[in-house]
Amino acid sequence: MAQPSRYFVTGGAGFIGSNLVDRLLADGHDVTAYDNFSTGQRNFLKSALPQQRFQLIQGDLLDVPALTSAVAGHDVVFHLAANADVRFGADHPRRDLEQNTIATHNVLEAMRQTGVRQIAFSSTGSVYGEPDVFPTPENAPFPVQTSLYAASKLAGEALIEAYCAAFDMRGFIFRFVSILGERYSHGHVFDFLQQLSADPTRITVLGDGRQRKSYLYVQDCISAMLAALQRASGQVNILNLGAEEYCTVNDSLGWICRRLGVEPQVQYTGGVRGWIGDSPFIFLDTARIRSLQWRPSLTIEQAILKTVDYLRENQWLLGSRRGG
Amino acid sequence: MAQPSRYFVTGGAGFIGSNLVDRLLADGHDVTAYDNFSTGQRNFLKSALPQQRFQLIQGDLLDVPALTSAVAGHDVVFHLAANADVRFGADHPRRDLEQNTIATHNVLEAMRQTGVRQIAFSSTGSVYGEPDVFPTPENAPFPVQTSLYAASKLAGEALIEAYCAAFDMRGFIFRFVSILGERYSHGHVFDFLQQLSADPTRITVLGDGRQRKSYLYVQDCISAMLAALQRASGQVNILNLGAEEYCTVNDSLGWICRRLGVEPQVQYTGGVRGWIGDSPFIFLDTARIRSLQWRPSLTIEQAILKTVDYLRENQWLLGSRRGG
Repeated sequence: MAQPSRYFVTGGAGFIGSNLVDRLLADGHDVTAYDNFSTGQRNFLKSALPQQRFQLIQGDLLDVPALTSAVAGHDVVFHLAANADVRFGADHPRRDLEQNTIATHNVLEAMRQTGVRQIAFSSTGSVYGEPDVFPTPENAPFPVQTSLYAASKLAGEALIEAYCAAFDMRGFIFRFVSILGERYSHGHVFDFLQQLSADPTRITVLGDGRQRKSYLYVQDCISAMLAALQRASGQVNILNLGAEEYCTVNDSLGWICRRLGVEPQVQYTGGVRGWIGDSPFIFLDTARIRSLQWRPSLTIEQAILKTVDYLRENQWLLGSRRGG
Repeated sequence: MAQPSRYFVTGGAGFIGSNLVDRLLADGHDVTAYDNFSTGQRNFLKSALPQQRFQLIQGDLLDVPALTSAVAGHDVVFHLAANADVRFGADHPRRDLEQNTIATHNVLEAMRQTGVRQIAFSSTGSVYGEPDVFPTPENAPFPVQTSLYAASKLAGEALIEAYCAAFDMRGFIFRFVSILGERYSHGHVFDFLQQLSADPTRITVLGDGRQRKSYLYVQDCISAMLAALQRASGQVNILNLGAEEYCTVNDSLGWICRRLGVEPQVQYTGGVRGWIGDSPFIFLDTARIRSLQWRPSLTIEQAILKTVDYLRENQWLLGSRRGG
């Protein structure tokens, strides 16, 4: 199979999406970004926008006719658009259903109707709920969902698997740990920097700070997805993406404070979970993606420090968004 | 906990739903059936309708205001309404999304908004896809979905689990094998009888006839659900419901033909699957429901013969529906 060259990226103006757009363009591909700019940033596409091989379509995944005509003519869809607001699902349960589950259905239908046959999907390690096995492999015991976010992502995975079986499509489902790096604008590092830039003498940490989490640098995440598209041979390929290590929230806070040169008083909200549906321990088995000759280039500590440096150089982002 | 006594049954005019309504009324409970009569039969409610403790509401699960006001004031929701058209999912992919996934979301939202805290859900053994472990336990390895129907049911399971975690609800998720018995109007026995009543000399069997399947008698299914509601103690209780045996499609055909006194020529469509997404082997581990002091009263052969007898006495049903 010749390498496909026309990529369609939903959420193409987002954190991971815009980094992927830049990488695909650098590799010589044609790229269409589809984004409704609910959280995407036009600023993230400033190097992509002038390029001939790039097209930006402002559109919503719930607008089926617009989506269908936009998808036509591509070889591969990277479906990265999502409500990534993991912590606040219980405040607006319909948002996860619409933005994650129904949107994924719409993407698949648009592909089926226009004959686009390959989809890559950003799922989450949260679909394992609170697993008993660490590191957690892709074929861990059938999990019980603990958050609306993960439930809506699992529904997206299931839809992709069923479409592949029914309509002879190929699917790549990536279960991410939390991703860090340039254009990161959401999550605990963001939240910590936002708090410390408002008041460097104190910080509130959700939970007890001992939650164990794994992280991955965005450029490593993108390399892993592209390695899978090139080398995984199944009709449905499910792959954990993460580092071969984990850290505690307190480790991360320590690295961040040292980088910033601050020593805040830390107040913990208490409990082993930061919020309802927060998993106290996330550590994925990445043997499957490693078997495709992929390795991360940064450690978790390096990825966190790179993210801190990026956010310090891009203060506008800290001001623009609620942490999450 | 006193036993709840106000039950709300979605799909209450359907095959399993109407049998459940009759059982709950016989046990002295108040019952509301909610059904849009897309496949439900008013005829199935003829013993329920005159009873004071029974209320029928004709309504659709996609009609959120109607659903919400109907759900209010109940103790337990049995959410049985679904598109059960397992074989034809690829012909109308949005139907499974709407009737199974979005409808389940709407039921949960209606419950949350009106303070109803217990939900029992009819899921399917098909969520195990094509498992490697037989009999298949509830914590089998994380499956890959092979049909739009099962994908939409898995999404329903995930939503229920997430709602239980987020909103302190209790959930009972039942993964059914195929259910047989009185008011059965859908599936291979129905299809065989429909064919043989049109022409008793020949029959077409989907696949190679060697598919191994498990079945359960509807009254045993209902007893199992009620046993779980009384005795299972978890916040989320996931339970396989099935017989401790399986048979082949050819076994079933043989029993049916002997009962009817016919010897048709059998033509097989071929292949190990009857249709895309058909699982060649379904056999669930039922140790969990058995640990709650439940046992089926009929063997698979007895359940099939009872179904044949029922359909022969209710020819109107054979004429009314496409087999599936």
